[in-house]
Amino acid sequence: MPDDFDPEALADVLTLIDDNLEDSLERLGSLLAIPSISTDPAHEGDCARAADWLMHELRELGFQASIRPTPGHPMVIGHHPGPGRHILFYGHYDVQPVDPLDLWSTDPFTPVIEDGPNGRCIRARGASDDKGQLMTFLEACRAWREVTGSLPGNLTVFFEGEEESGSPSLVPFMKDNADELRADLALICDTGLFADHTPGIVTQLRGLLGEEIVIRGPSKDLHSGMYGGAAMNPARVLVRILAGLHDDQGRVTLPGFYDGVEDLPPEIAAQWEALSFDPARFLGGVGLSTPAGEAGRSALEMIWSRPTCEINGLVSGYTGAGFKTVLPAEARAKVSFRLVPGQDPQAIRAALRAHVEAALPPDCTAEFHPHGASRAARMATDDPAFEAARQALGAEWDRPAAFVGCGGSIPIAGHFKTILDMDSMLIGFGRDDDQIHSPNEKYDLECFHKGIRSWARVLARIAG
Amino acid sequence: MPDDFDPEALADVLTLIDDNLEDSLERLGSLLAIPSISTDPAHEGDCARAADWLMHELRELGFQASIRPTPGHPMVIGHHPGPGRHILFYGHYDVQPVDPLDLWSTDPFTPVIEDGPNGRCIRARGASDDKGQLMTFLEACRAWREVTGSLPGNLTVFFEGEEESGSPSLVPFMKDNADELRADLALICDTGLFADHTPGIVTQLRGLLGEEIVIRGPSKDLHSGMYGGAAMNPARVLVRILAGLHDDQGRVTLPGFYDGVEDLPPEIAAQWEALSFDPARFLGGVGLSTPAGEAGRSALEMIWSRPTCEINGLVSGYTGAGFKTVLPAEARAKVSFRLVPGQDPQAIRAALRAHVEAALPPDCTAEFHPHGASRAARMATDDPAFEAARQALGAEWDRPAAFVGCGGSIPIAGHFKTILDMDSMLIGFGRDDDQIHSPNEKYDLECFHKGIRSWARVLARIAG
Repeated sequence: MPDDFDPEALADVLTLIDDNLEDSLERLGSLLAIPSISTDPAHEGDCARAADWLMHELRELGFQASIRPTPGHPMVIGHHPGPGRHILFYGHYDVQPVDPLDLWSTDPFTPVIEDGPNGRCIRARGASDDKGQLMTFLEACRAWREVTGSLPGNLTVFFEGEEESGSPSLVPFMKDNADELRADLALICDTGLFADHTPGIVTQLRGLLGEEIVIRGPSKDLHSGMYGGAAMNPARVLVRILAGLHDDQGRVTLPGFYDGVEDLPPEIAAQWEALSFDPARFLGGVGLSTPAGEAGRSALEMIWSRPTCEINGLVSGYTGAGFKTVLPAEARAKVSFRLVPGQDPQAIRAALRAHVEAALPPDCTAEFHPHGASRAARMATDDPAFEAARQALGAEWDRPAAFVGCGGSIPIAGHFKTILDMDSMLIGFGRDDDQIHSPNEKYDLECFHKGIRSWARVLARIAG
Repeated sequence: MPDDFDPEALADVLTLIDDNLEDSLERLGSLLAIPSISTDPAHEGDCARAADWLMHELRELGFQASIRPTPGHPMVIGHHPGPGRHILFYGHYDVQPVDPLDLWSTDPFTPVIEDGPNGRCIRARGASDDKGQLMTFLEACRAWREVTGSLPGNLTVFFEGEEESGSPSLVPFMKDNADELRADLALICDTGLFADHTPGIVTQLRGLLGEEIVIRGPSKDLHSGMYGGAAMNPARVLVRILAGLHDDQGRVTLPGFYDGVEDLPPEIAAQWEALSFDPARFLGGVGLSTPAGEAGRSALEMIWSRPTCEINGLVSGYTGAGFKTVLPAEARAKVSFRLVPGQDPQAIRAALRAHVEAALPPDCTAEFHPHGASRAARMATDDPAFEAARQALGAEWDRPAAFVGCGGSIPIAGHFKTILDMDSMLIGFGRDDDQIHSPNEKYDLECFHKGIRSWARVLARIAG
């Protein structure tokens, strides 16, 4: 916490944030209008445009900013040297694909302000994940600069454009630029509020392992009348492989999958118990009622501290309108695992591939496409910045901030630790109903507004 | 067999067929250029065009022809009253969808004559199934008419346009027009040669039952980090349901599935044995080596006389390039069964639905879309027309014709029997490598040419 923390300057910054909200929203709208879908090669130019937009924004805010090419989409880096602890802020400018497009009520890349379930919101792909979130930090910097004439302390901003597609360029880039990127603490804004008006600081994150499996059989699609019965159907092979990944208790069956996975320590279990999380409300919001994970685990454990295996995509044969009696030549599945501390992604990938290979009948082959592998992470909550940020957030929101888990995978936190030996603090303002990765993604204006104010408060306490 | 069978007239007809082959091919090309994909509503107009084209063709040949509307695609009927046994010829003018389009080497609806594996062939969707085949009959009629001034005997032609999409209008139409359609024998041209130069007359056909299954879970696609572990994934439910349809011996597990299914009678088994069918060659042509059906059955049994269960289509979640960590809101499968004599399609549909319903966890629902249900059929081989046709075919081809089974489902044969009490004789000239229902469908010019000549010979012996 800086010694020269000036409550009056902070008050002026907060007032300016309130006054300038319309302009802030307009800037967010410009960024949201760029369809920077990183997984789709057709949007390569859009990713470059989003990076460029952010570089200019950073320069306007007084950062020494540059676009940094990679074999994939570029990084954007801005430096603002100054006194005190070196803080790095991370966000990502790329977004998820938008399909099924027909389920969107408005165009995903024409942002609109409308009435949402929690007051006004801005609707567009990336509104919450992660463009709206990263803009809360930039807008806090902007207000700070307008009030004090400068940015607070020693800041670096680091944006990537491949977060939604497994970040293939991230690790090599961080290794090549380790000295430039290494700071005393990283702030990551890609998570949500714990509850509607309760901010959270994430202290543990699940890892992620993705794998695409392609089972091939006949050399081409066949007529099921002519060949049905005698020709092996790769879709039949695939469903048997996938069905074998869980047992009747919802546990993953791969040998060694739970090696190193520990039960929740009693003190964390107690903290989580105190959060009065309501599984019925959480699941009810998406049309469900029954926690579907491992038998005997609480819903919070299922989403924060237990590993999972999920089918994310499945395709084979004829999928259009009507019917086609085809024996498909191939069947594909995208499968991913959420990992918890103790699990080794590469060992699990090897176990998955062995499971697939062992299940192949004659005439079938398997092809594998890896899509990212990141370990789970636990945060350094003994760093005083965690308590300072908790107090800053508590001052902005109705309820004290909570130390929580996060079921999502933010591999960057693990990379910061492994490659740069840098701890991370994850603070974000998304809400559960933001529909991230789904049609009609939105970000509540309240979250955007109070998010900007939150960063101003956090910076006042930990920067400079 | 007509008493006035005139070998000289037949010789003239055959010569004319040889001389006019180019014109015959041109007419086939015009029909193939119409993309009459019955399962796709976007091609409704094309189906109507194909029907219209055939009606005009029939009128040119001296039939009293008309388009007969149905709630789906129209029927085309032509009558030519005359002496002798009333013969009805059936074919279908609709074709399968063409996807995946990028696997076609030429446009599927721009027919081209090219060199194929068995000499020259015509390449287009529907070339073999069934436009090329039905045109063999019409071109035989044309030659007959040009030589003799009239068509032989008492002929009716009946074309439908929904064969590739479950024939929803067929049964009601046949019931409403039973008196008009009832003949003494039906000729159906929608099957293949038994071997490259060995014609076959099909004496048993499998039935077909299709069902689309939709499993729904959450009310929308979810983020697998936020909900993964706690939310039920319908793709996981679907693969378990589908994997449960076969046991380790390749048998279908639905209760009652094999009720009424009989082992092959020894005399049929002996006939089939004599055909010297080569499973290695049959499967090798499509990149396979091992018969994949029920343990302990021959490959011919697997494709002709044993029932099957196949996954024809599978789709859930994100299936595009790259990866998306989504928990899908729904998962869909198209499943079909090839049925043999003794099996009741409706009982099997009920058993399938019960299997699905019993496997549904909390929060998941199942929706079913039926796609056709036809029983298997055995033909009336004691009708002397079968032996007459066998001799006629043997005169045209290098080898005597064989009585064979057919793994495909030609529901019309069952409907002719059930609704009109009319027996069918199935004769066709397709080859195993015709790629029907697959990209790059073709029909060998040899099959087209000798197919026309074959019908001239068959008509000489059984019509008039």
